Amino acid sequence: MKEIYIGIDLGGTNIKLGCFQADLSLLCKSSVSTKGDIGPEGVVEVIYQSTNELLKKNNLSPDSISAIGIGAPGPADLDEGIIIASPNIPSFRNVPLRKMISEKFSKPVVLENDANAACMGEFVAGAGKDINNMVFFTLGTGIGGGIIIDGKLIHGCDNNAAELGHIIIHPGGRKCGCGQNGCAEAYASASATAKRAEEAVNSGVQSALTEVLKKNGEITCKDVYDHLKAGDKLAKKITDETAKTLALLCIDVLHTTEPQRIVFAGGMIAAGDILLKTIKDYFDEYIWDLKKEKVEIAFATLGEDAGITGAAAVGRKLITNE
Amino acid sequence: MKEIYIGIDLGGTNIKLGCFQADLSLLCKSSVSTKGDIGPEGVVEVIYQSTNELLKKNNLSPDSISAIGIGAPGPADLDEGIIIASPNIPSFRNVPLRKMISEKFSKPVVLENDANAACMGEFVAGAGKDINNMVFFTLGTGIGGGIIIDGKLIHGCDNNAAELGHIIIHPGGRKCGCGQNGCAEAYASASATAKRAEEAVNSGVQSALTEVLKKNGEITCKDVYDHLKAGDKLAKKITDETAKTLALLCIDVLHTTEPQRIVFAGGMIAAGDILLKTIKDYFDEYIWDLKKEKVEIAFATLGEDAGITGAAAVGRKLITNE
Repeated sequence: MKEIYIGIDLGGTNIKLGCFQADLSLLCKSSVSTKGDIGPEGVVEVIYQSTNELLKKNNLSPDSISAIGIGAPGPADLDEGIIIASPNIPSFRNVPLRKMISEKFSKPVVLENDANAACMGEFVAGAGKDINNMVFFTLGTGIGGGIIIDGKLIHGCDNNAAELGHIIIHPGGRKCGCGQNGCAEAYASASATAKRAEEAVNSGVQSALTEVLKKNGEITCKDVYDHLKAGDKLAKKITDETAKTLALLCIDVLHTTEPQRIVFAGGMIAAGDILLKTIKDYFDEYIWDLKKEKVEIAFATLGEDAGITGAAAVGRKLITNE
Repeated sequence: MKEIYIGIDLGGTNIKLGCFQADLSLLCKSSVSTKGDIGPEGVVEVIYQSTNELLKKNNLSPDSISAIGIGAPGPADLDEGIIIASPNIPSFRNVPLRKMISEKFSKPVVLENDANAACMGEFVAGAGKDINNMVFFTLGTGIGGGIIIDGKLIHGCDNNAAELGHIIIHPGGRKCGCGQNGCAEAYASASATAKRAEEAVNSGVQSALTEVLKKNGEITCKDVYDHLKAGDKLAKKITDETAKTLALLCIDVLHTTEPQRIVFAGGMIAAGDILLKTIKDYFDEYIWDLKKEKVEIAFATLGEDAGITGAAAVGRKLITNE
């Protein structure tokens, strides 16, 4: 019988499911609506039913599941497998998700932070698969982080390591949702990049983005990068500040854990080479000259599959310690 | 026969030697002048003779040495045991120190970065002896760093992890000796604190430190903290900026590896509680309010023995993997 691992990426909007072989190659996947308002038991039932459907459709037996990994957002007690709170699933308060899923499937289950799971996914099967030390950033609504040292995810003393978006880049600067001032996240997440553009337009700065705001009622991060490519001056200024902040973040993590590669993921990397090149250019401009740094700055390669792949990987680790 | 470990702290001015039991309790120690101008072979001879004298005086036999650890400053190839360059011992260029010491003593030898060795010393026998995850800063001419995760020193992909003094706290700020702008080291090392005070006095700011500069031709970090305690306004302003920078540094490392304790060492901690309290106050002011942080900020306890203790500990690790 085939030995398989289930990776679950529990988001506020969708639950993504993946079924993986022991070498973490993807056999099949699906996505269902989270329906967070039906509460934890309902969500667990949705996961159970969807997984069984996915397996059946692909002629796989639930008996062949070796372990299940779940990546979930928000503060959690990972050791106990409990989701303390979930920013996008308000009905999840102190939910013993690991125990609930484990009892439902009668299989071993591990809970992981969602950014860590995505980091692990890129590490085992994506942009970090050939290295041992990596730092990972997701650029979305916020900036999530993950750190791999000698092949292992760093969790910290209270499972809150690698909150890399909250490294303070600009002391006394923009207020972050976390309560600090000047966090990387308050400048360089996709949302903060869009928000800074919107603020500039609202303050009267001339830009083609003014029309976008008028037409759509908002400016997205994609709008800003599209207008950068079209030569808009404000878009250039805004995206430059984003790239500078990310370059400084790269320097700070380099001087901390010294990874071989720094990997950016998340919706914002759709901006492509122009984003990556600008980060690298500012990194080269700001980094010390004591030694030539070999660290590579790269984009993630797995896209939306990073979360399910990493969740399956932490599940596999539970069994094989690999 | 007693099993002993030798810890060597190779500084630009002095070589400190310590002889430790297997549980890393100190049996005896000594200190000799480095005499860097006699070259690597001469320095190795000094180490050999001094160690034998120390052992003899304490009725210990060189045969009982299990391993030797050396902490040394400057860029090194730790894997190969080679000192690439040493800022305070100019005659040391590409010196295979591990091999030289090992051949001289016919014992296993390990080379470690000096800040890492001091970090390890505090971890095994000082301010971190009861925990598993620690971040360590030395506040001296520069700011050195060390990171312990799950009981192990982090070395990074090229043995340059934990260069924590070069985390950029104030982008575009003061030029650091490393070539970057705004490094923590350029503001909050003992030297930078003294230098900022001297610059302020030279620019005409009213302060009792003006007399110190006139009389001694320089202002030291100790002068600044002495005048802080005496109520001098400039000293307050300068030391506040030092403490703010160190608090921001604590926040950045907390969000990276999430240690249980952050330990400050080096000459500057002689300033005492007034320094520690101000760092803690700014940390509490600037840290996020998403969760109550449990990290402790503390001073080192081993003083000058941290380097030899940690060197002995990495030597012991070579043998026992403890």
